[in-house]
Amino acid sequence: MELSLFNILDVLGTIAFAISGALAAMERRLDIFGVFIIAFVTAIGGGTLRDTLIGYTPVTWMENTIYVYLIGFVTILAIIFRDKINYLKKSLFLFDTIGLGIFTITGVEIGIQNNLAPIITIALGAMTATFGGVIRDILCNEIPVIFRKEIYATACLLGALAFVVLHDLGVERDIIYLVTSIIVIGIRLVVVKYHLVLPYFYIPSENEEKAD
Amino acid sequence: MELSLFNILDVLGTIAFAISGALAAMERRLDIFGVFIIAFVTAIGGGTLRDTLIGYTPVTWMENTIYVYLIGFVTILAIIFRDKINYLKKSLFLFDTIGLGIFTITGVEIGIQNNLAPIITIALGAMTATFGGVIRDILCNEIPVIFRKEIYATACLLGALAFVVLHDLGVERDIIYLVTSIIVIGIRLVVVKYHLVLPYFYIPSENEEKAD
Amino acid sequence: MELSLFNILDVLGTIAFAISGALAAMERRLDIFGVFIIAFVTAIGGGTLRDTLIGYTPVTWMENTIYVYLIGFVTILAIIFRDKINYLKKSLFLFDTIGLGIFTITGVEIGIQNNLAPIITIALGAMTATFGGVIRDILCNEIPVIFRKEIYATACLLGALAFVVLHDLGVERDIIYLVTSIIVIGIRLVVVKYHLVLPYFYIPSENEEKAD
Repeated sequence: MELSLFNILDVLGTIAFAISGALAAMERRLDIFGVFIIAFVTAIGGGTLRDTLIGYTPVTWMENTIYVYLIGFVTILAIIFRDKINYLKKSLFLFDTIGLGIFTITGVEIGIQNNLAPIITIALGAMTATFGGVIRDILCNEIPVIFRKEIYATACLLGALAFVVLHDLGVERDIIYLVTSIIVIGIRLVVVKYHLVLPYFYIPSENEEKAD
Repeated sequence: MELSLFNILDVLGTIAFAISGALAAMERRLDIFGVFIIAFVTAIGGGTLRDTLIGYTPVTWMENTIYVYLIGFVTILAIIFRDKINYLKKSLFLFDTIGLGIFTITGVEIGIQNNLAPIITIALGAMTATFGGVIRDILCNEIPVIFRKEIYATACLLGALAFVVLHDLGVERDIIYLVTSIIVIGIRLVVVKYHLVLPYFYIPSENEEKAD
Repeated sequence: MELSLFNILDVLGTIAFAISGALAAMERRLDIFGVFIIAFVTAIGGGTLRDTLIGYTPVTWMENTIYVYLIGFVTILAIIFRDKINYLKKSLFLFDTIGLGIFTITGVEIGIQNNLAPIITIALGAMTATFGGVIRDILCNEIPVIFRKEIYATACLLGALAFVVLHDLGVERDIIYLVTSIIVIGIRLVVVKYHLVLPYFYIPSENEEKAD
């Protein structure tokens, strides 16, 4: 039962990130094949890194073909309904944020199942959630969204922290999943709406004169 | 016998990609060491990703030193004969395309040997073929060639698809290898010669006004 | 005893790279979370690649939480004392170079313990030392330092070569470690001080007219 809820979430996160990747690729005017690649990489990137680092190989999407078919199907829908989806303002942002919330949960869950230490489990949750977007941005030769001041990964870390704490307290999975996703998605929505930023500590570069 | 043909192809693909990497690095004015690194990464990148994702570790080139020596030797030749090689018009393109065709074969072959599903095997073939070039381009801070409209990866996918279908039909390996490489190399040559492009579906970005 | 010296070096290398990553991130005006991420990635990137390629999973920092806490603590110190650290001229360069020397040692050591061939062991040492910096630069969307003419990786390769040769000669570990780190750090300091560069072999690009 828990496993099945986990699988449902993993599928939902994959759908959300595939849509977000497809939209990003269409915005960048990639050809149809580029759209499929970016959708695929965005959707499976985080889980692939997670599986590789903990040594769960062949990685999940290789063992379970449903992911590849699902991403292909979702990408086709995203292409067909691209005008409609885009009409929803900030839809790329929205799907990306939903994916973040869900993949934080699946990453932490895998960490707990592998008996990793809490701090590592939290890091694994944040990496699973954010890495797909990082690869997407690197492939598009952009500065990864993770550094673009939207408290992107901080939201995942806080959600993952809540998961680990609630898990220690013996709370039921359904409730933990709900709280974690609300925290991640809520923080990101609030942060973007109110333009909140984290503080930064600037060191003037020695090359400043040369570089600027 | 099949294994030996596989090994010969793997060596040929490694040579082709090492030359392509070395030429790309010399074009970008990297120093001699940078030329070796890029040649190495381009030649082993795809196979390393493949091995890592399916859990075949230590990865192939670590178990079999022939690859490292071969890449070093080929790179030295590429440096010595750089004017001659370059005289052959489009030689970088040519070696890159040969490498694509061969590594599509080795990727699919490994997928079949590991009993992966057909769709995954096809994806593995395309990833093995294209990833070396993607890393090469990321290291050089360029937009990966995979997105530069040359139907780069689509050719590999179609070749890998042919491989899987012929394999299911019980065709002999020698013939499958020949057909697959002809498809990949042929498609890419035709596409570039006639400037064919895949369709694309453009979504105007919300940031368009700001960004452009 | 050898193991313990190895662990001490690994911790020192992690500290050096975490500081170097934190300084680089503060120079680039990343927010406080970005500083932690870059510090983390720079410090564990090389070891993570090494562990993944040889199949040692879960990777080291997942098994041993000391690394995560250490990087967090060092990064906080780097933020607090950022003006003081920066006052030491070229401190980013210095910490980066110390990290290079130490991680070359740990990479070669792991290669020897896994009975890899000497040439592979040398490559593993250089990759362990340089990959953290490469990821750091890719994430910051810069051309990786490895190609910025400072004989960055060549120093690691020569140090790793010395390690393997001395190991074959039966020299004691303490002395090998000392010689290796002196070679890597010494070469890099001398090279930068005297502006030495490796030769390069330039091929005019066919696209030169178009591209430039």
